[in-house]
Amino acid sequence: MYDRIKGFRDFYPGEMGARRATIDTIEDAARRYGFREIGTPALERAELWTDKSGDDIVEELYSFEDQGGRHVTLTPELTPTVARMVVAKQQALSKPIKWFSTRPFWRYEQVQQGRQREFYQTNVDIFGSAEPEADAEILAWAADALTSLGLTDEHFEFRVSHRDILGGVFESLEADVDVDDAIRAVDKSDKLSTAEYHDLLIGAGLSADQAVEVDDLISSGDLEAVESFADTERVTAAIENLQNVLDAAADFGAREHCTISLETARGLDYYTGVVFECFDSTGEVSRSIFGGGRYDDLIESFGGQPTPAVGVAPGHATLALLCQRAGVWPEEAVSTDYYVLQIGDTRSEAARICRELRERGHVVETDVAGRSFGSQLNYADSINAETVVIVGEQDLANDEVTIKDMDSGDQTQVPVDEFPGELERPTFDEFA
Amino acid sequence: MYDRIKGFRDFYPGEMGARRATIDTIEDAARRYGFREIGTPALERAELWTDKSGDDIVEELYSFEDQGGRHVTLTPELTPTVARMVVAKQQALSKPIKWFSTRPFWRYEQVQQGRQREFYQTNVDIFGSAEPEADAEILAWAADALTSLGLTDEHFEFRVSHRDILGGVFESLEADVDVDDAIRAVDKSDKLSTAEYHDLLIGAGLSADQAVEVDDLISSGDLEAVESFADTERVTAAIENLQNVLDAAADFGAREHCTISLETARGLDYYTGVVFECFDSTGEVSRSIFGGGRYDDLIESFGGQPTPAVGVAPGHATLALLCQRAGVWPEEAVSTDYYVLQIGDTRSEAARICRELRERGHVVETDVAGRSFGSQLNYADSINAETVVIVGEQDLANDEVTIKDMDSGDQTQVPVDEFPGELERPTFDEFA
Repeated sequence: MYDRIKGFRDFYPGEMGARRATIDTIEDAARRYGFREIGTPALERAELWTDKSGDDIVEELYSFEDQGGRHVTLTPELTPTVARMVVAKQQALSKPIKWFSTRPFWRYEQVQQGRQREFYQTNVDIFGSAEPEADAEILAWAADALTSLGLTDEHFEFRVSHRDILGGVFESLEADVDVDDAIRAVDKSDKLSTAEYHDLLIGAGLSADQAVEVDDLISSGDLEAVESFADTERVTAAIENLQNVLDAAADFGAREHCTISLETARGLDYYTGVVFECFDSTGEVSRSIFGGGRYDDLIESFGGQPTPAVGVAPGHATLALLCQRAGVWPEEAVSTDYYVLQIGDTRSEAARICRELRERGHVVETDVAGRSFGSQLNYADSINAETVVIVGEQDLANDEVTIKDMDSGDQTQVPVDEFPGELERPTFDEFA
Repeated sequence: MYDRIKGFRDFYPGEMGARRATIDTIEDAARRYGFREIGTPALERAELWTDKSGDDIVEELYSFEDQGGRHVTLTPELTPTVARMVVAKQQALSKPIKWFSTRPFWRYEQVQQGRQREFYQTNVDIFGSAEPEADAEILAWAADALTSLGLTDEHFEFRVSHRDILGGVFESLEADVDVDDAIRAVDKSDKLSTAEYHDLLIGAGLSADQAVEVDDLISSGDLEAVESFADTERVTAAIENLQNVLDAAADFGAREHCTISLETARGLDYYTGVVFECFDSTGEVSRSIFGGGRYDDLIESFGGQPTPAVGVAPGHATLALLCQRAGVWPEEAVSTDYYVLQIGDTRSEAARICRELRERGHVVETDVAGRSFGSQLNYADSINAETVVIVGEQDLANDEVTIKDMDSGDQTQVPVDEFPGELERPTFDEFA
């Protein structure tokens, strides 16, 4: 007997059905906004990450040398791949480019609830627009996707900021500040005590007074106060951009899901502008579900024309936890419209009924295992069949079949040439 | 600039749309038969293949040691994974177990037309029935899937045989025959000259006369002649089973797509009973598109209860070639229901129209890049928008928007509060 690998999951039909319904819902939302599906490879040259990414991600790569001596890796995220694809066909693609895809990614991480080594994301990106409407459309899609799943603003919120606000505030201080370290401290602050947080800020070059002052300023979320504190063009422009994005989000119907949260830094990734994280507001402790933002420099750094970009990537494991806590996760059960039960040598008539019902698009099973009446009925029950069509030798001698409603247990006999006849979805009720 | 890896493909939206339509069609057919979707890992322990598979597949594995020292591999096929999943929940799963999934697999092979190193398959399997109806249901699904794509028996045929027929014939010869080598020779025979083919049979232990006799016998496809030639229980039982499967396939509507072809051996894999291959009959040279068959011993060899099994796995690259040659491949173009064009400061009204149209399920784009009238119209054309809704400042001052049919170029003005109003899918025609 073989085991699956730790951090890799098998999805059996019930759970897979719930996942598929969820994926379909959020992909349908993406299609309605005109995002177009793309297909991307599982393997890429490892340089796409080792050249540019932080050590964290490089240490977690499933990378190896292939038979052709290439240093390759299982992709830990989609963004470098889509950047490569944009660069490869930059001239031919009409802009803005709006793409989505749902697929697995792989990172060698500590396995915990909501975090596996193989994990699924739906990536949604816009390339070729620096306008606030593009950021707002990403926010609007994300809100639409979540509300289409049955979630409301009781369950989630988007905490929105702009990378240049924090950077600009630290830059404006009269001190020798390591801005990246300081941003990293803010990014971690909700997991730290105040003292630990301030110590990290001091370690990044702030004075003790500055640490307290900046902490107060950032947690206030007061944009006017931040603007006058920093008093630099960079911060003023960032705040203006953030407000423009939120204004556009208001027109697009997503503003009500957004709160300004200057702590939101999205690590030190490739983000350059507005950044946001979706938080679970159902639990006592709120938790980041997924995030996104603007990354205007990535395409150029991949050798392409300067191309602004903004995107988001909900992960399906954390999304499932959120939906489950909110009570909107789809039922994990298979469903079946008809089971056509054979008694005796009635295969040819049963097969005709199956074919006609399937032509109407219904989910139809029949016996393929030579089972008895009882075990066929048990099986029909196990697959949650709504209607059982009993095709028995004796009934057929009278040109009849029996229609059984599995919910009530009621059944009735019907002329065989009237089933399914002209009916689109014949059930017990039509014949009772 | 980074390159993708040889044998790995990027799918841009037009081609991806055609692939998605194809996948949806054949998955819908699987759902109608009551096959249930499962989700499976990309990585497995390499032993799942190195313990049992032939050298061919082991040499092509993308295998490596992970950070935890596990010898893992990118899965080159699905069957060992589903066997592992059946064994893991054998008691809990009601039988027959009917599963499907579509996903990529990986083999380090020579890249050629229709064969990449990353390739997609839809696997469809039934576990827990040894009855001919199970084999026939697999054939019926495959036929239904292909005809749902628009293919007919002018384009494809299933060549059906039984593993024990060839094996039994060779076993029955009065000679010291290496049966596996002999079957392998038959399997390759359509790529060989008659002389080469006979040499391989002689190499496997047949006399020159026997090689000629067996060649004639096998290519005749005459089951009665084969039965009396071998005159063994094994061959008689195999022929009876094959005929039972074809009889069930007749009831299930798939018989017309099947021809008996005793050359069909499906290599030396894990097959134990009926085997079949789908051939392209459109080209001058017919070519195997995909294959399947019965593999009753695999689950037990994975440590499970003896569990008969039968399955098939169409590959999407060869299926696309078949559909393209037959002229039924979906158009590789994106489609868009509405483009909502903004002139001047009309975002809020344009956004309302977008939201209302999207709520009705339509694909709707609007400007997110601050474009001019002309470049918005060009973009609308590039995404094949059917209707353009022009929301201009001047029109809005008169409480109107302009509806433009992109096919004809015709346009008309409409009261803004009537668009979309109560209409499910308002176009130019409703207002002309």
